[in-house]
Amino acid sequence: MKDIASAIGVSAPALRELFRRDILRKAFISHPFFSDVLEAYKLDRKFGGFEEGTLIAKTVEGVEIVRGFPKIKRALTLYPTIKKHFKGDVAIEEKMNGYNVRIVKFGEKLYAITRGGFICPYTTEKVRLIFDKSFFKDHPNLMLCCEAVGEESPYVPSSIYGERLDFYVFDIRDKSTNEALSIKEKERICENYGFNMATIFDVVSSKIAHEVVRDVIEKIGKEGREGVVIKDVEMKEPPIKYTTSQANCSDLSYGFRYFGEYGKDFLFSRLIREGFQSWEFCESEENMYERALRIGKAILFSMVESIRNVKDRGKVYENMRLRFYDLEVFELFKEHVRRMGVSAKFSDPIQDEDGSYVVHYYKYMKSTTDIVKHILEGNLWS
Amino acid sequence: MKDIASAIGVSAPALRELFRRDILRKAFISHPFFSDVLEAYKLDRKFGGFEEGTLIAKTVEGVEIVRGFPKIKRALTLYPTIKKHFKGDVAIEEKMNGYNVRIVKFGEKLYAITRGGFICPYTTEKVRLIFDKSFFKDHPNLMLCCEAVGEESPYVPSSIYGERLDFYVFDIRDKSTNEALSIKEKERICENYGFNMATIFDVVSSKIAHEVVRDVIEKIGKEGREGVVIKDVEMKEPPIKYTTSQANCSDLSYGFRYFGEYGKDFLFSRLIREGFQSWEFCESEENMYERALRIGKAILFSMVESIRNVKDRGKVYENMRLRFYDLEVFELFKEHVRRMGVSAKFSDPIQDEDGSYVVHYYKYMKSTTDIVKHILEGNLWS
Repeated sequence: MKDIASAIGVSAPALRELFRRDILRKAFISHPFFSDVLEAYKLDRKFGGFEEGTLIAKTVEGVEIVRGFPKIKRALTLYPTIKKHFKGDVAIEEKMNGYNVRIVKFGEKLYAITRGGFICPYTTEKVRLIFDKSFFKDHPNLMLCCEAVGEESPYVPSSIYGERLDFYVFDIRDKSTNEALSIKEKERICENYGFNMATIFDVVSSKIAHEVVRDVIEKIGKEGREGVVIKDVEMKEPPIKYTTSQANCSDLSYGFRYFGEYGKDFLFSRLIREGFQSWEFCESEENMYERALRIGKAILFSMVESIRNVKDRGKVYENMRLRFYDLEVFELFKEHVRRMGVSAKFSDPIQDEDGSYVVHYYKYMKSTTDIVKHILEGNLWS
Repeated sequence: MKDIASAIGVSAPALRELFRRDILRKAFISHPFFSDVLEAYKLDRKFGGFEEGTLIAKTVEGVEIVRGFPKIKRALTLYPTIKKHFKGDVAIEEKMNGYNVRIVKFGEKLYAITRGGFICPYTTEKVRLIFDKSFFKDHPNLMLCCEAVGEESPYVPSSIYGERLDFYVFDIRDKSTNEALSIKEKERICENYGFNMATIFDVVSSKIAHEVVRDVIEKIGKEGREGVVIKDVEMKEPPIKYTTSQANCSDLSYGFRYFGEYGKDFLFSRLIREGFQSWEFCESEENMYERALRIGKAILFSMVESIRNVKDRGKVYENMRLRFYDLEVFELFKEHVRRMGVSAKFSDPIQDEDGSYVVHYYKYMKSTTDIVKHILEGNLWS
């Protein structure tokens, strides 16, 4: 433990205090699949200059710190927000709707770390199949920050990016300092090593970016895509995110389907976004009606479906289709889910033509189920 | 202070503690208009068997306790909720959309106490003009629990009940025990003394009330009315409330207009109501679309209007038209509003044909204004 303590610059008693206060938690499962890692912990909160989600791992090659991915702040209006926060040119990059993964090499193997700082067995398995290790040999200090997207996602399934889980690099950063490469360097590396990259729609002066972003947002919104991240081309300023109405409404639909699990903050903030966007886009009466219907449907239809599910089947589940290439990883993933505190059921694996195994993952939504049940039994709402 | 302390059954030091913790607060303004009251305090929280909003007044005739109006719980589904909570017959009474007022007589004059326990000068002035004191002479222990409705309302203005503030009795209770008269006794008294009464749509067996309520709700919803309160005809069981979709959406519209002031709880709970109602009413796809559009419009249109107001005029105000019969009461009301912590502006009074004075009351919505301003200046949302 002494090496872990010194890696984050605290004394041994201070480290114990971090564990006691649940700021530092175990982040992986001991298993041959993770054989390069001896111990690993994650920061559940910002601490001493390290971001939430920072991983501290004792590996076969010594202690490694993988910095948490920095929170990206959101613009509610494009103008004058972009102009105010950037000088010079900005890249307008696609924000894909998946989950954030940092890919690193420990010892001889690749590891995929999710936003919170867990080493995820499901994601790690796919990363090892897709990514060539040569990049990490050439650049031992760098990590690939990717969006993991696809229908076969255990966290954020979305069918618009294809069936199987895939990875799109959006940042390349120094894993211990979190310093990001410029947009140009990132593009060069991705091309050299053949990595998928989040689409860069345009690189324009920050003075006119609000106009370009608006056009992009209206176009990709119609395609059901999530939004954009606006980045200083040199990556010296913190980026800003901005999302489409369709993405906000898709969040609303998800949030109201599981309204017991998803907080009021989650839902409220998405409604506020819609208000500012509608105002800024100077929408016609007709477009406002369209947006209002989209919002209302997102809220109402999914809520009613959950109530119906409790009435008809007694429970609300989120149902996801997963794919494993090794059944050992399936076992590891079940343990991983259990440790994350998720109550879940899994179907038996069914072997696919290519030898991989398809599994259905049912995530039990206890809070929504309990509330609906309570109401349907005729109890009052305070 | 000793008599106040003994009235609520605490020692003098315990009373001081209640003041220190802001559980007990001053509830009126010393003024000849309130000459029968020497001191008055209100409970800002439930305390020792007394409801929130209970008034403890030292009057010219001794200390009086006026119990707070009990919170009415809400049904999210009509079936089996009503059947579960009542035996025998229930009255289905209109829940009007105004503010709750308890009318009592202290000394020689009538006093109107709002839900929180304030003696309101605006409401008191109207009550003294409308209500005959003979009822209170005949029944010195009773209070009239009324809904104060109309466009000229300082708290809940609504145009569907007419312009001037008016009062509809819904409960008659013992002011010190809070025991309610039966529905029949209430009807008899209201008829005898010529009081307006909240409409009783029907009196039916609790076993079939859910069907009757549903018909009533669909009918009055179309008229923009608020909802119903379902009451045990003997008033031995706590009543239950249930509202129309139109009322829920009208609340949403109000809440999103002043989204900085109105909490996430306020908005979230109204959306949840819509989900359960749509499910219980087994709505057709078409009716669900209608409801979704109603919800979406309520949310979006008012939010956009507030953003526009900040952009164009720098501030968001709620604008209400009030009427005073005596300008002294206008002065008292200004002081009352100030004590409630409301930041407001008033127009100069303009005398109407009947000699009364019309005043515009602008309630400043600081939190909404500040948030919108902050965003329009180009600041980020965390």
